[in-house]
Amino acid sequence: MKFEYLNPTRLVFGAGSLSRLGEMAGTYGKRALLVTGGGSVKRSGTFERARNSLADAGITVFECEGVEPNPRISSVKRGAATARDNACDLIVALGGGSVMDASKVIAAAVLYDGDPWDMIHHGQPQPHVPTEALPLITVPTLAATGSEMNCGAVISNAETREKSFVQAECLYPKVALLDPELTVTVPKDQTAYGVCDLITHITESYFNGTGDTPIQDRFAEGVILTAMEYGPKAIADGNDLNARAQVQWAATVALNGWLSAGSGSAGYPVHMIEHTVSAFHDITHAAGLAIINPAWMRFAAKSNTAKFVQFAQRIFGLDAKGSDDLDCASAGIDRFEAFLKSIGCPTRLSELGLDDRLIETYAKETLRIVHDENGLLPGRPAMSEADVVGVLRAAL
Amino acid sequence: MKFEYLNPTRLVFGAGSLSRLGEMAGTYGKRALLVTGGGSVKRSGTFERARNSLADAGITVFECEGVEPNPRISSVKRGAATARDNACDLIVALGGGSVMDASKVIAAAVLYDGDPWDMIHHGQPQPHVPTEALPLITVPTLAATGSEMNCGAVISNAETREKSFVQAECLYPKVALLDPELTVTVPKDQTAYGVCDLITHITESYFNGTGDTPIQDRFAEGVILTAMEYGPKAIADGNDLNARAQVQWAATVALNGWLSAGSGSAGYPVHMIEHTVSAFHDITHAAGLAIINPAWMRFAAKSNTAKFVQFAQRIFGLDAKGSDDLDCASAGIDRFEAFLKSIGCPTRLSELGLDDRLIETYAKETLRIVHDENGLLPGRPAMSEADVVGVLRAAL
Repeated sequence: MKFEYLNPTRLVFGAGSLSRLGEMAGTYGKRALLVTGGGSVKRSGTFERARNSLADAGITVFECEGVEPNPRISSVKRGAATARDNACDLIVALGGGSVMDASKVIAAAVLYDGDPWDMIHHGQPQPHVPTEALPLITVPTLAATGSEMNCGAVISNAETREKSFVQAECLYPKVALLDPELTVTVPKDQTAYGVCDLITHITESYFNGTGDTPIQDRFAEGVILTAMEYGPKAIADGNDLNARAQVQWAATVALNGWLSAGSGSAGYPVHMIEHTVSAFHDITHAAGLAIINPAWMRFAAKSNTAKFVQFAQRIFGLDAKGSDDLDCASAGIDRFEAFLKSIGCPTRLSELGLDDRLIETYAKETLRIVHDENGLLPGRPAMSEADVVGVLRAAL
Repeated sequence: MKFEYLNPTRLVFGAGSLSRLGEMAGTYGKRALLVTGGGSVKRSGTFERARNSLADAGITVFECEGVEPNPRISSVKRGAATARDNACDLIVALGGGSVMDASKVIAAAVLYDGDPWDMIHHGQPQPHVPTEALPLITVPTLAATGSEMNCGAVISNAETREKSFVQAECLYPKVALLDPELTVTVPKDQTAYGVCDLITHITESYFNGTGDTPIQDRFAEGVILTAMEYGPKAIADGNDLNARAQVQWAATVALNGWLSAGSGSAGYPVHMIEHTVSAFHDITHAAGLAIINPAWMRFAAKSNTAKFVQFAQRIFGLDAKGSDDLDCASAGIDRFEAFLKSIGCPTRLSELGLDDRLIETYAKETLRIVHDENGLLPGRPAMSEADVVGVLRAAL
C-alpha cells in the first residue's frame, strides 16, 4: 500500500442541519451564488429556507437555477458569469450531484480567464488543471453521487457530445451540509438510482483495486451491506428518516476517499463507459451504471475471480469451493443484479430503448477520452476496445 | 445521527515515505523543531535520515529529544522554549504516540504566553482552549496511538500526578507521513501493545455509541478483524512489511475520526480510568488498557447486551440465542481477553504488581478529572465512583 489521502471538507450531518447554512456560510463570504437544478427545491420550500438562512446571516444571495441532470458546460459558464457580474465570494450548491458538480466547476471558473471546458479531461493532456476556486458549500437534496464531500465533478458538453470529469484539490467543498430531511421527498425511482449509484462507486474501487487491502475491503463491504439493508427501506417508505440518513451517509462515504484510500484502484471502467453512453443519449447516470456494472463484473470476474468470490461470500453469504470458484463468483453477480432489479433499476440497454447500432462508437469514444500508455481503458483488467464492445453487447 | 466531522490532515502512506519528509516540510517552514523520544530513532538511523531529508530541502533543524513514554508537561515547556529561542516555524514529531502528543502541545505552546498546562483538561473548566499552533508534521515510528492523524494529545503532570488530554482543531497535523518500514524494528511487546491500543480505541467508540449506526459498526468491526489477523503476524515476524503496513493503517483509522464520526460515543471510560492508574504508576498505557478494557466490557455488557452480542457474532463468529443473550456476549469478551493474552498483554493489575490499596483513589481521581452534570464518568452506561471501583476490583 502506497498512497496519499486528503479530504479537508467539514461535514455537518443531521436532520435539521439546513438551518445552520447561514452560520456556516458566514465564515467564508458575504455574497453567495446559490446554484439549483430543475425547480424541485423551490416547490418543496427548501430553496426558501436556504435563502432565508443565508439572508439571516447577512449574506446577499444571487441565483443560478436550471442546472441540467447531466450538467452542461454552458450552465457552468452561465453560473460563473453571474458570480463574476455580482462579485460573489462564495458558491452554495443546493441540489443533487449535477448541481454540486456544476457548482464546483463554477467556483473554479470564476477565477479562470480561459474557457472552463479546458478544465475537463477530454483527451490528454488536460489544458488547465484548476488550482484555485471560490469557497463552496454543498447541500445535497438527494443521496447518490457523494459529490458533496469530494473534489471531483463530471460535466457534459452538448456540442461535442462529450461527458468527462475534473478532479483537483481546490474543488473540495469547505463544508458539506447533509440534512437527511431534505431527501424525504425524493421519489422512489430516484432513491433507487441513488442506491445504485453509491454501490457502483464502491464496487469500482473494490474490484479495480490492487488486492491485499483488508481494511478497505471491509469498509466497502460494510457500506454495501448497509445500502442494501436501508436502501429498500427508504424506497418503501420515503419518510423513514433513519433509513434516509443511513443511505445518505452511505452515499457520502462511498466516494469521499475513505474506502478507496490505499485500495490502489486502477480505474473506473464502468463509469467511463457509462459516461460515453449517457453523453450520446442523456440517460440517467445510475440507470446506465445499473446496466453496465453487472455486465462488466461478469467480464472482470474471469481474471479477478478471488475478489468476486469474496464479494459473493461476504455480501450474500454464499459458499465457495475455493478462491478460484467462478461459479460462486457468478452467483454473487447474479444476486447483485437481482438486487438492482428488485429496487427498480433497469439492467439491460434495451430497457432504455437502446440497441447495438452505436456500440462500436461508444467503445471508441470511451477509449479516446481515457486510456493508459498501451491505449487500454484503465481497470482490473485493463480493457481493449473489443472488451468494451463485449461488455456492452452483454448488456443489450 | 447528528454530528460534525473534520480532519484536514494530509496522509502520505507507504514504505519509503520518510524520504519525502523534506519535500513535505518545505511547504510549511524553514526552521524545524525535530522532536524525539528515548533515543531508538537515533540508534536505528531513522533520525539521521529524517534530518538529512529536512536539510536537503533547505530546512534548519533544532532538536528536542528525550520525550518520556507518558509525555510530561515539563518536556512540552522545554520543547516550546527551544522552538521559541530558535524562531522555529514548524514542528516535526518523529517517534511514537508520546512524541506526537508532546509535539502537538509544543506547537500550540509556542504561540501561547500562559502556562501550557492550562491547555490540558484537569477539572472543569479548561483554562485555555488552544486556537492556533505552528504547523506540525507527524512521522510515527510505531503503530499504536493514531495520534499521527488526529487533533488530540494526552499529557502528564508529574508534580500533580495528573494525566489528561486536550483536543482542538488547530492541533491537527498538516501532514502525517506513515512509513511502515520505520516500524519493523519495534520489539514484539511494543508491537502487541500497539495492537491492543488501537483495538481499544475502536471498542471505546463502538460500545459507548448511540446504537443504530450500521456503517460505523461495520467499519469498527472491519478494523478489529484486520488488527486481529495482521497483528499476530507482525508480532511473529517483525520484518513482515505487509503485516506492519496493515497494522499501521489500522492504528491510524482507529482514531482519525472515520469510525467514530456519527457513532455518538458518550465517552472513553476505559481510557479515563487508565489515565489515572498510569498517572500514579507510570505504567505502559496499552498494558493498562489491556487490563481495564475486558473488566469494563463485562460491566457494560450487562446493560448494553445487544451490542456485545453483535461483537461476539461478527468478530468471533459466535452463535447467539437473541440480542439479549448475555452468555454469548460474555463468551465474546472471554475470547477478546484470550486474544490479548495470546499476543502477550497483561490482563490483570496484579501482573503489573498493583494491588487494591489505591483503587478508591483511582476512582475518585478519574471522576474529578472527567464527569458529566450528574457527577458520573461519561460512557454507556455512565459510571459512578462505585462502578469504577467495581471494574478495577474485577481487574485485580
